[in-house]
Amino acid sequence: MSAIEDLVTEFARLPGIGRKTAQRLTYHLLQQTTDRTGTLAAALIQVAERVRSCSRCGDFTEQDPCPICQDPRRDDAILCVVEEPSAVPVLERAGFRGRYLVLGGRLSPLDGMGPEALRVGLLEQRLTEGLVREVVLATNPSLEGEATATYIQERLTGAGVQVSRLARGLPMGGDLEFVDGVTMSHALRARQTVT
Amino acid sequence: MSAIEDLVTEFARLPGIGRKTAQRLTYHLLQQTTDRTGTLAAALIQVAERVRSCSRCGDFTEQDPCPICQDPRRDDAILCVVEEPSAVPVLERAGFRGRYLVLGGRLSPLDGMGPEALRVGLLEQRLTEGLVREVVLATNPSLEGEATATYIQERLTGAGVQVSRLARGLPMGGDLEFVDGVTMSHALRARQTVT
Repeated sequence: MSAIEDLVTEFARLPGIGRKTAQRLTYHLLQQTTDRTGTLAAALIQVAERVRSCSRCGDFTEQDPCPICQDPRRDDAILCVVEEPSAVPVLERAGFRGRYLVLGGRLSPLDGMGPEALRVGLLEQRLTEGLVREVVLATNPSLEGEATATYIQERLTGAGVQVSRLARGLPMGGDLEFVDGVTMSHALRARQTVT
Repeated sequence: MSAIEDLVTEFARLPGIGRKTAQRLTYHLLQQTTDRTGTLAAALIQVAERVRSCSRCGDFTEQDPCPICQDPRRDDAILCVVEEPSAVPVLERAGFRGRYLVLGGRLSPLDGMGPEALRVGLLEQRLTEGLVREVVLATNPSLEGEATATYIQERLTGAGVQVSRLARGLPMGGDLEFVDGVTMSHALRARQTVT
């Protein structure tokens, strides 16, 4: 296979990138006058070489422990449990300043993901340090995320920490017309008195 | 900046890839168990190292002249002029079996693309070989593509070759309701008698 075909195939393996888009990206790179192809290749190699999982929280990091785990100004009393590293920047942008624990997945029997595939041991080990007072379960608002949260919640029974969940309700933007039944049911049950 | 941020930035420089998609791609690669990041990097490096422009037709190629220019079974009498290499596979799939000339762009005064940026010299040189009988102008159906085709057409006046253009009309699929006025006007003027 040719180098162009190889690159198209590799791009098309990325999520949400079809074959046409992969071709467009490849031709785009080929038409650049500066070496954008080399720059992208270098960035990929750097990520592959330098990014590891933090041994303390499981987030992606270039230093171990990661900068968040090392930051002395953060609140040790509140630990946010997420499925994947991609949730961390979202919570950071939302102003969360406690600590994290990245499970590294979700319970998904169909995909062969059982509790042993999650970093539950790391979570329990963290709680034995005695600093955490509240565990915020910030799993995804999906069936698997719910199951994962319920499982963690049960595992933490008797651990002497408060366990909370992210609020469910209407997202910003959009139109009520397109809100699904489960979300609307949450939003209705958790309605807040305003006057 | 971190390696992850760098890669997100590089992905986000690609056309049609916003920052959110770039983040998703980066996290996706980081979560793969096999070294997909390295494979993509290697494919990029191979493209950057091996792909050149064919000195005869201007298409991207790993050998010079390119396989199409070297293929003795193709029809030397018909030369298809396209703006970019990305048009070549589309014409190939449509069954074209003549030769190509890739201009390497289109006339676009606003972007500083004048005739000197196009491979018009290579086109004229090809015609002096005396094999080409027909030049098919297959520029893009855009204002700039039209201007480019008109310019090439004028340059070829007196060159002793027949000059043709791709037919304009309705594309397959879609609905007449969404066809633009220019296309419909072409389709109407070029209507074909069927009985």
